[in-house]
Amino acid sequence: MVFTTAENTADMVFDAGDYRDHEQVTFFSDDETGLEAIISIHDTTLGPSLGGTRILDYDTEADALTDVLRLSRAMTYKSAAADLNLGGGKAVIIGDPDDIKTEDLMRAYARAVDCLDGRYITSVDVNSGVEDMEIISEHTDYVVGTRDGLGDPSPVTAHGVLHGLKACVEHVYGTDTVSDVDVAVQGLGKVGHGLAERLAERGASVTVTDIDEEKVEAFTDEHDADSVAPDDIYDVDCDVFAPCAFGGAINDETIPHLSCDIVAGAANNILEDEQRHAGMLDDEDILYAPDYVINAGGIITVYHEYHDGTEQQAFEDAEAIGDRLLTMIERAEDEGTTVLDAANAYAEERIENEDRTTPARSW
Amino acid sequence: MVFTTAENTADMVFDAGDYRDHEQVTFFSDDETGLEAIISIHDTTLGPSLGGTRILDYDTEADALTDVLRLSRAMTYKSAAADLNLGGGKAVIIGDPDDIKTEDLMRAYARAVDCLDGRYITSVDVNSGVEDMEIISEHTDYVVGTRDGLGDPSPVTAHGVLHGLKACVEHVYGTDTVSDVDVAVQGLGKVGHGLAERLAERGASVTVTDIDEEKVEAFTDEHDADSVAPDDIYDVDCDVFAPCAFGGAINDETIPHLSCDIVAGAANNILEDEQRHAGMLDDEDILYAPDYVINAGGIITVYHEYHDGTEQQAFEDAEAIGDRLLTMIERAEDEGTTVLDAANAYAEERIENEDRTTPARSW
Repeated sequence: MVFTTAENTADMVFDAGDYRDHEQVTFFSDDETGLEAIISIHDTTLGPSLGGTRILDYDTEADALTDVLRLSRAMTYKSAAADLNLGGGKAVIIGDPDDIKTEDLMRAYARAVDCLDGRYITSVDVNSGVEDMEIISEHTDYVVGTRDGLGDPSPVTAHGVLHGLKACVEHVYGTDTVSDVDVAVQGLGKVGHGLAERLAERGASVTVTDIDEEKVEAFTDEHDADSVAPDDIYDVDCDVFAPCAFGGAINDETIPHLSCDIVAGAANNILEDEQRHAGMLDDEDILYAPDYVINAGGIITVYHEYHDGTEQQAFEDAEAIGDRLLTMIERAEDEGTTVLDAANAYAEERIENEDRTTPARSW
Repeated sequence: MVFTTAENTADMVFDAGDYRDHEQVTFFSDDETGLEAIISIHDTTLGPSLGGTRILDYDTEADALTDVLRLSRAMTYKSAAADLNLGGGKAVIIGDPDDIKTEDLMRAYARAVDCLDGRYITSVDVNSGVEDMEIISEHTDYVVGTRDGLGDPSPVTAHGVLHGLKACVEHVYGTDTVSDVDVAVQGLGKVGHGLAERLAERGASVTVTDIDEEKVEAFTDEHDADSVAPDDIYDVDCDVFAPCAFGGAINDETIPHLSCDIVAGAANNILEDEQRHAGMLDDEDILYAPDYVINAGGIITVYHEYHDGTEQQAFEDAEAIGDRLLTMIERAEDEGTTVLDAANAYAEERIENEDRTTPARSW
């Protein structure tokens, strides 16, 4: 047999720029259902890897791999920075959910998750919901986000973001209340709404926006709050800008518009280019609360769900985000780095200080 | 976060030409030891996948993937055609064994094997030996080929090849003895030597060759046998040509030299291009015993080792290769195909007739 190099396959999994230090990346397929899934386990030093299953019609398999590698690494940092005993993992199922998603496909996927024997625990993500987790749970124990679980984690996430935001306010203004603070909230989805509501209830001056005008009206009807058009939210003169809508809200174009002292929001991937834009905010003397640190309420909730804990425990853990963030802010000041760097260092040190005998371990 | 397509990654795992119907391909790495391993599970319909761990310094990761995908598929066919309740799997560890192979690396690899929870059972292969399996066995039960095992499977393999060869002789000459048969044996490695010895003991006229002249001399001293120079073996006027040395012995260049009625040997991948050269032998009215069918003594041995069986059981199973090959030969005649096609169909039907609920299953 003669083995020839397939063309265009020079960079693959180990060689992929995003592979770096992943422990285990598994490609699963099932002929009968057409399942093509990649489960990426980035690091299990602190515990089993946990992260959602994303179902997307990627342009190429390389795109799917890039996505799952980056997302699984991000989950390692998120859980480590939240003081959870969890590692980072993520899964993608390749295909248009409208075309491919069948019960049989989800069952085949569930068996794939079960194959990993608890090294990866799955949950909801883009295009996968509670009903999918229900099917998965018939075939494996390594799933959270089912109907029996703690339910929608959005309130816990909003609670965590509030306490992260309060830590920033305390650091910048030396006050432990938000009653004198102006906050511009971008996006009134479940978490953004929950955050804006909590702020308004605590006496903050809130300015909201959303592309859905009905959401804006409903909020301003119910609360003493201003609103602006979506594009104007960056220009609101405020103390805190809270991006809760979409990734990349902070970028080269929006930063010059900001007139705030703090950026602290619930969205994932707030910075379009993490290092660059964390640095730019720092240069503008704007304190940036790393998104993955303050929006950890979701992972905190599923962690307690997995361990048969209560919603109350999740709320308490989310509240602790504030103190942890303050530690990171102070460290950044001491060491002359961005808070993002300090948060990353915090997460990395938790992992480094564990006795590591990967890839297989029991927790 | 913006995800861009890494260049040169259009074809990856699912899209790789050799991926086709593999159930699960896992990339394992371990920072501390530098381990980079790919474990490919092709099909587990009939049982857990079993195949060796090859340690090689591949030029590219794509080469390693191509190799492990092809080898794991071949193991599925080999075990299925040997009537074993095993699936096909294979593993590669990427790197020069002289540079990378340490006890710690093999331990990390063992934990990777253990992660798969019995869906893959490993064994010796190129650059991995009994001492490596010993280390692996300290960390996982899913290994064969240790010192406690049934030992060197070469005698069983030689025994199986002999019985496959006898089946061909019976079909072509209508005789159940090899005493009147001329056999040219290429290669006097453990299996080639074992085959030549068995043939000589049964009264066959044997012509041997090997690049190691001492092996040839030792054999002709001990047995009533002729010898030729390595390059002349293809021209020996004989009944059976038995390639037992290297892959690709049957190719465009060597076929015109053959003056035999049967090709039946112990080497892996005897045909340089399977379909093409099986067809060319058929056109020349030369009966070809598919290599993976008649050299199955090794996998038969480790199967019994895994199930705590005896060497005696392995020898009996290897003897059954003869009858199974006759069935395939007759089927090929009935259906007007090559014996290789008939063997592949035999293997595929065994799998298709199983109730298949991959990827996770218990056997």
